[in-house]
Amino acid sequence: MIYDLIIIGAGPAGLTASIYASRYQIKHLLIGSQLGGTMVWASMVENYPGFESITGADLSQKMIEQVKKLGVEIKNTGIVQIKRKETNFELKTENDELIGAKSLIIATGTQRQKLNIPGESEYLGKGVSYCSTCDAAFFKEKIVAVVGGSNAAVMSAMHLAAIAQKVYLIYRKKPLRADPIWVERAQKESKIEIIYETNVMEIMGDDQKVTALKLDRPYQGNEQLKVDGLFIEIGGVPGTELVKLLGVELDEKGYIKVKPDMSTNIASVFAAGDVANAAGELQQIITAASEGALAANGVYQYLKEGGK
Amino acid sequence: MIYDLIIIGAGPAGLTASIYASRYQIKHLLIGSQLGGTMVWASMVENYPGFESITGADLSQKMIEQVKKLGVEIKNTGIVQIKRKETNFELKTENDELIGAKSLIIATGTQRQKLNIPGESEYLGKGVSYCSTCDAAFFKEKIVAVVGGSNAAVMSAMHLAAIAQKVYLIYRKKPLRADPIWVERAQKESKIEIIYETNVMEIMGDDQKVTALKLDRPYQGNEQLKVDGLFIEIGGVPGTELVKLLGVELDEKGYIKVKPDMSTNIASVFAAGDVANAAGELQQIITAASEGALAANGVYQYLKEGGK
Repeated sequence: MIYDLIIIGAGPAGLTASIYASRYQIKHLLIGSQLGGTMVWASMVENYPGFESITGADLSQKMIEQVKKLGVEIKNTGIVQIKRKETNFELKTENDELIGAKSLIIATGTQRQKLNIPGESEYLGKGVSYCSTCDAAFFKEKIVAVVGGSNAAVMSAMHLAAIAQKVYLIYRKKPLRADPIWVERAQKESKIEIIYETNVMEIMGDDQKVTALKLDRPYQGNEQLKVDGLFIEIGGVPGTELVKLLGVELDEKGYIKVKPDMSTNIASVFAAGDVANAAGELQQIITAASEGALAANGVYQYLKEGGK
Repeated sequence: MIYDLIIIGAGPAGLTASIYASRYQIKHLLIGSQLGGTMVWASMVENYPGFESITGADLSQKMIEQVKKLGVEIKNTGIVQIKRKETNFELKTENDELIGAKSLIIATGTQRQKLNIPGESEYLGKGVSYCSTCDAAFFKEKIVAVVGGSNAAVMSAMHLAAIAQKVYLIYRKKPLRADPIWVERAQKESKIEIIYETNVMEIMGDDQKVTALKLDRPYQGNEQLKVDGLFIEIGGVPGTELVKLLGVELDEKGYIKVKPDMSTNIASVFAAGDVANAAGELQQIITAASEGALAANGVYQYLKEGGK
C-alpha cells in the first residue's frame, strides 16, 4: 500500500495538515503515537482564536473528530524507521508494519527536555513528573517544586497551586521568561514562591519517593529544599531522530530547516509544527496549525507537478 | 493618547494579534472598519481546526468576543491617514480623531478585485455583487453567474445553487483553480454550468437591473448570456494605500514584504494576514491568525528592547 502522503505526528500541525490534505483530496494516512500531541497536556488554552478557554484535551478531541469526519485513516502508533526507496519512502511502525509513501510531512513535535541530574530517572513516577496536567492530582496538600521559567513552567505552577499546599518555582535566571500575563498571575498567587538564579543539582528521596531537592545555591539558608514532588518544565527537544538518517537538514538548534512552503532540503519531505524552525521561538497551537496547512499545500503543489 | 501598539484591521490576523498583545500586556487599540474582516462573508468555514463547520460570521463573533473579554479597546472605524511623527505614528480616523502609536500591526487584508468592465459600477446593487453570502437571497429561483475560478468563486456558485434556479460559473482559464474538493462538489451540482476560457466583457441591463452578460467567446452559439445577476469573485487587492506613503516596502504583487517575525522594512511596523506576503498564495483564516500571533510577538520583542 503506497500513500501519496503520510503525516507523521498528530498534534495541531499534523491534524491541520490532514484537514487540508483531505480538502486537496490527497490519499493520505495520519500516524501519531499520541493523538493531539503535546496539546493534550495543556491544562488550559486561552490563546487559540475561537475558543475563549478550553482544555488542551478538549481542543485535541475537536480537531481529531474533525479529521475523522473527513474520512481520514488515522493510525495511533509510532514510527520506528523510515527508509528511502527508489521513488518512495518505506515506513516501519512500532508493530513492524511496513507502509509506503510518496511524500512525508514530519510533524513530530518535541519531546520533553530532561535535567539529566541524579535521581531524575530513579524517581520518575515517584515524585518526578514532566506533566502537571497528568499528575497534579497526586499532590493534594503536598509541597511541590517546578523547574523552569517559561510559560509552560509558570502554567504548571499555577495549576499545581490550585491543588498543592505550596509550590516552589525554581528558575536558573531572573526574571522569568514567561509572558507578562503569566508572571503577574504567579506573583499574585500566595501559594507560589519563586526561587531565582538557582539550579537543582540532585533529586533525593527514600526508597519510596522524592523527599528533597539539592540546590546549587542555598535558599533561606538551606541547601536542601523539602518537597514531595518535582515537575520538570524546561522545554523540548525536537523529534528528529527518524529524519536525520534521511538526510533532512537541521538548524543549529536541531530543528528541521524549512522554506516558507514548509518544504525541506528533500523535495518530497515537508515539516510543520514545533519540530520545524518556521516560527522561531514562538511554538504555539495556532502557529503549528498554520504550518500544517502550509505543508499540505506544499505537498499538493509537489504532487500536482508530478512529484518533482 | 499614545498607545504602545495600534492594530489596524480586525479580521483573523488583527484579532489574533490582539489576543497575543493582551497576553503580552501591551497597551493597544484594535481598529477596523469591519469587525471580523472578510471572514464575516464566508458562508461556511470547514477548514479552521477546532470547528467542523461554522459560518464565517459565527467564527468572527467568537474571536471578537474573545478579544473583548480580554479587555481590549476596539474601535469600529476606518483609518484615513497615518503620519510618521518623530518617535510615534499619528493616525487619523474616519471621524477625524487623532490617535498616537509607538508601533503598528497592519492587518488590513484585501479589498475585492473589480472586473473594470462597462456596467460594473452602474449595476452595483442592481444585480452586480461581490458577496454571495450577503446577496444570494435576492436571487431565489433566478439565473445568476459567478465570475472566477478560485475556492471563493466555486463556494459562491455552490451557495447560490442552493437558492437560484441556475448558476453559470464563468472562468477565463481551464481547469478551475479551486481545491479538488470544491471542484468535485461543483461538478456534481446539476444547477451549476461551468463556462471555461471565457471573459465577461460587459454587464448589460435595463434601467432597473442586470439582464445579460456580453462574453468574449460565444457560449452555445450566443455572445450574450441571459442572467439576473452577476457575482464577481476574482480575488483581492491588498489594502496598502495607507502604508505606501509611510515607505513600507511591497513585493511585486503589491503585498507588504515581511520577515519571519512579520516585521517590515520599518522597525516599528509589522504586518499580518492577507495584506502580507508571508503565506504566499495560501490566504486562509488559520494562516492569517498565525501571522497575527507572530506579529504581536514581534512587537513585544521590539518594545521590550526599547523600540529600537
